[in-house]
Amino acid sequence: MAKILVPLATGFEEIEAVTIIDVLRRAGNSIIACSLQDTLEVAGAHFITIQANKTLKNVLNEEFDMIVLPGGGLGTQNLSSNQMVQELLKKFKKEDKLIGAICAAPYALHTAGVLNQNYTCYPSFEKKIHETGYHSNEDVVIDQNVITSRGPATAMSFALKLVEILNGKPNAEQLKQDMLVKH
Amino acid sequence: MAKILVPLATGFEEIEAVTIIDVLRRAGNSIIACSLQDTLEVAGAHFITIQANKTLKNVLNEEFDMIVLPGGGLGTQNLSSNQMVQELLKKFKKEDKLIGAICAAPYALHTAGVLNQNYTCYPSFEKKIHETGYHSNEDVVIDQNVITSRGPATAMSFALKLVEILNGKPNAEQLKQDMLVKH
Repeated sequence: MAKILVPLATGFEEIEAVTIIDVLRRAGNSIIACSLQDTLEVAGAHFITIQANKTLKNVLNEEFDMIVLPGGGLGTQNLSSNQMVQELLKKFKKEDKLIGAICAAPYALHTAGVLNQNYTCYPSFEKKIHETGYHSNEDVVIDQNVITSRGPATAMSFALKLVEILNGKPNAEQLKQDMLVKH
Repeated sequence: MAKILVPLATGFEEIEAVTIIDVLRRAGNSIIACSLQDTLEVAGAHFITIQANKTLKNVLNEEFDMIVLPGGGLGTQNLSSNQMVQELLKKFKKEDKLIGAICAAPYALHTAGVLNQNYTCYPSFEKKIHETGYHSNEDVVIDQNVITSRGPATAMSFALKLVEILNGKPNAEQLKQDMLVKH
């Protein structure tokens, strides 16, 4: 069982955030969704408000196995301009821990300088990152400890790949069956 | 633009609820997520708490174009035992309005007596409903005004089919592109 930090910034993409949290919890992991503000309620890009488990400020000294960033345009802007998130990303990278990001959020890895050469992201964001090493035909790209994905429709594949990495392939296969995933 | 009621019962399946709300809002519809209790916070099956827009009690006299039920085992139990939800379903059926349900939730349509002959649902729930007319090979089944689907991994197809019905095929196709849906 892994302990995973999911920062929820105002404007996060809801399908992505919820799929990541839901699927990783189904596999038995401990997911701590954290608000960047002092309040726990965080509004997503489509006005769905989710209650975070803790504030980010309150977990800065906790140990985690992985950090995963949901996307969303505004959400990513907030993740890339937030000092706590950017410092945490650098700390995870330095400690060689797992880092994940989907949709626009690989841009927030780029601003922290923790994105590896090979990655994917929501189309057009590669222009703000770097076009060399951008994989437009892969739903999920793994380059060492950094795992990236593309958007709402790839959130399920992304979450299942994280389960495979953290909890093993049989667990991922079981979840695929439980959730009626075909591919 | 359609006005759609999404009841959120304690134990709702989060991927299903959020995908329905997110995608239908992307298409420009007005989605009112309603708590069955007197408080707005509703905890899902995987402990993700979502803030509903209103309490169900407060919208009983509002007019909607459609009602859509997310699934989840406990969520469905709560939907099928809740008098307000069951009466609303009967009212929607009587007024020939659209009714949707995914995963275990078609069972809550069955208990209200509003499910049509042809339907689909999460595997095994057909044994509690009726095996004749159960379609195990379809992600989404439409029988007149009642649209049903199967589980977390079919939530995207389900939501997009609802957009197609409510907002037209071009809107659904545009959303598929925006969310990077392949099929």
